[in-house]
Amino acid sequence: MTTHYLLNKLRQENPLVHSITNQVVSNDVANSLLAIGASPMMAMAPEEMEEVTKFAKAVVLNIGTLTTEILEAMLIVGKAANKKGVPVILDPVGVGATQFRQEAVSMLLKEVTIQLITGNAGEMAYLAGIDWSSKGVDAGEGKASGREIAERVARRYQTVAAVSGKEDFVSDGRMTIGILNGDPMLTRVTGTGCMLSGICGAYLAVGGKPVLESTVEACTAYGVAAEIAVENKEVNGPGSFRASLIDALYNLSEQTIRDKENIKRYHVNKSEEGTNE
Amino acid sequence: MTTHYLLNKLRQENPLVHSITNQVVSNDVANSLLAIGASPMMAMAPEEMEEVTKFAKAVVLNIGTLTTEILEAMLIVGKAANKKGVPVILDPVGVGATQFRQEAVSMLLKEVTIQLITGNAGEMAYLAGIDWSSKGVDAGEGKASGREIAERVARRYQTVAAVSGKEDFVSDGRMTIGILNGDPMLTRVTGTGCMLSGICGAYLAVGGKPVLESTVEACTAYGVAAEIAVENKEVNGPGSFRASLIDALYNLSEQTIRDKENIKRYHVNKSEEGTNE
Amino acid sequence: MTTHYLLNKLRQENPLVHSITNQVVSNDVANSLLAIGASPMMAMAPEEMEEVTKFAKAVVLNIGTLTTEILEAMLIVGKAANKKGVPVILDPVGVGATQFRQEAVSMLLKEVTIQLITGNAGEMAYLAGIDWSSKGVDAGEGKASGREIAERVARRYQTVAAVSGKEDFVSDGRMTIGILNGDPMLTRVTGTGCMLSGICGAYLAVGGKPVLESTVEACTAYGVAAEIAVENKEVNGPGSFRASLIDALYNLSEQTIRDKENIKRYHVNKSEEGTNE
Repeated sequence: MTTHYLLNKLRQENPLVHSITNQVVSNDVANSLLAIGASPMMAMAPEEMEEVTKFAKAVVLNIGTLTTEILEAMLIVGKAANKKGVPVILDPVGVGATQFRQEAVSMLLKEVTIQLITGNAGEMAYLAGIDWSSKGVDAGEGKASGREIAERVARRYQTVAAVSGKEDFVSDGRMTIGILNGDPMLTRVTGTGCMLSGICGAYLAVGGKPVLESTVEACTAYGVAAEIAVENKEVNGPGSFRASLIDALYNLSEQTIRDKENIKRYHVNKSEEGTNE
Repeated sequence: MTTHYLLNKLRQENPLVHSITNQVVSNDVANSLLAIGASPMMAMAPEEMEEVTKFAKAVVLNIGTLTTEILEAMLIVGKAANKKGVPVILDPVGVGATQFRQEAVSMLLKEVTIQLITGNAGEMAYLAGIDWSSKGVDAGEGKASGREIAERVARRYQTVAAVSGKEDFVSDGRMTIGILNGDPMLTRVTGTGCMLSGICGAYLAVGGKPVLESTVEACTAYGVAAEIAVENKEVNGPGSFRASLIDALYNLSEQTIRDKENIKRYHVNKSEEGTNE
Repeated sequence: MTTHYLLNKLRQENPLVHSITNQVVSNDVANSLLAIGASPMMAMAPEEMEEVTKFAKAVVLNIGTLTTEILEAMLIVGKAANKKGVPVILDPVGVGATQFRQEAVSMLLKEVTIQLITGNAGEMAYLAGIDWSSKGVDAGEGKASGREIAERVARRYQTVAAVSGKEDFVSDGRMTIGILNGDPMLTRVTGTGCMLSGICGAYLAVGGKPVLESTVEACTAYGVAAEIAVENKEVNGPGSFRASLIDALYNLSEQTIRDKENIKRYHVNKSEEGTNE
């Protein structure tokens, strides 16, 4: 059982979440942040990246349409966030697809302390060093389970890792939590993973819980919202689902999340812990 | 009473409005321009900025995701528009937040003659030189009223100023008009201020009225559309409201605007006029 | 009669379509690709353009918000696609509007072999060298018919040309096919032409038919989806139509397309063929 008390806190505090996200999804990320109760900011000029951390309570870096200029901005804002103790979330969209993305993510992981990495199985398997057959920005297929991938990424980078999928897995390398909430319709709308990493940013911005637990709350809230959105009888496909998802995030209550949460806890056994690298 | 005769003219003339807007909201700005009856163009390469003023009947500059390259484009298109007598609208998104934005707006105001500045209270208070507590791109809080802010910005920059809020205030420094139409749901969707500045561009493009009056028509039309959109019984949150707002702009008639307009006129007294700077 | 068998194949193969599209419409293009059954990728850094052709089964180049950096990326990915036999689709948005766009398209046509050019009458008339009165990115007006324009572009550039309008015309210079499916509401939503060029990319990615026939299937499917979308009784304007269009693409079946297709075949006569350039 998870307590789910961050949503009301989030709506009271209305934290500013600074997102450098890809241009395909920036509107949906901003609207999902507003719907859940946060305040989005999406500046991306390197010249102002140091200063935006004056207001930001979390920084989300999403490499979906990365350019060298955007990478420069990410490095500045990431380091500034680290100095001020502002949590940094990394969403390594399509990292396995090209050397440019691999090098960018490697640089971000080296120069910025990341509190949470979120991605699909293909992206996270690449980071875990696990063989995987991906295709562009899709999850693809491979032999490791989402759980194994999350645990490996968490231990390898000493961070919290969230792997999205039919069952989402969130791990800090010692404890892993599976979230079974959600709906397959999420895979038919672009940017639903990017919205989730944004919402994780909002939950981490509120604080008061370990990153692992905050992330589990965020993933559960989002999964429950998707379930509610798809039940709306006006929803007839991904176009109407997308609007319904924003509505569901906006109308979500802690009680509904508690009623619908479907979570499993896994303890990482000691011998596995020792064999991570 | 305002006459509200620009909407039909706008739909007959279908003016091209050139917007350099931020990437988060560009789709919604384009669709709201189409819905109201204008034709959006959103080029942003500095190389073509001189030439786009061949077609443009108004130019809207929105600094939401400004970069140095985009600023360069804005300066070129703004000056070209000035030469041809094409009205220029400035939406100084988040101007108070960073020095980069402050310098950019200061440069735009110095090198380009701006016919209308639109923004929320926080952004406009910054331009008015009034102490204000803003947070990123949000309106924030302060002691001056929206009316005072609008009047100060209008006089300081010898332009028309529109401050959005629960009551919108439009002022040319001598006369101020308050528009009480609108709905709080507008604050829960990203880019609704940017859509309004775009629509102001469309109304200024049509011409035939002083900028103050055209802006009041635009703000009233937009506020009325928001009221209609929220009354739609399918609307269940900001996701469905956003689509409904575009529908309402598309279906808006001058008669509906006249029936629902809620406007107040304020005369700026002489002594205030003298103390502005 | 057209056989319409590519839709099911597309949904089975789920091809990755790499689109460099404009920032105004990138979200809608991605969602329409997902809805029809393809997998969108939208990277745009020149550094990774060579590599993305590892996965891409089609490349779509849309110049709506072109910059010199994006043009550079287009040239790299276009040439790489040519080497690997991956079809390239060009959507020359607003090409007539500025010299910058004219030179960019001229460079793309010279350095990249394009399998399909899609555009509205104004854009395609410019490419055909036909006098036309356009306004920005709109279709505008002129004396030639859509059919003539399509045929001229096809012959001039030895490619397949698709001209969108009340009747869409697709031509390879010898055979021209008119598609009467569609709905005027498509002209009230930004990016509906860009979504169509994206979907053409998905159909060309599947292959197994000449480009002319694949394009006709794509245009028919899209037009039928628009007809279904507008019949939805929840649709009350362009905002709700836009979501409904994505839903209709998602729910589309080959049988529905066959039942609703409205296609005409025109043979280009020999003497016309000889007089094209």
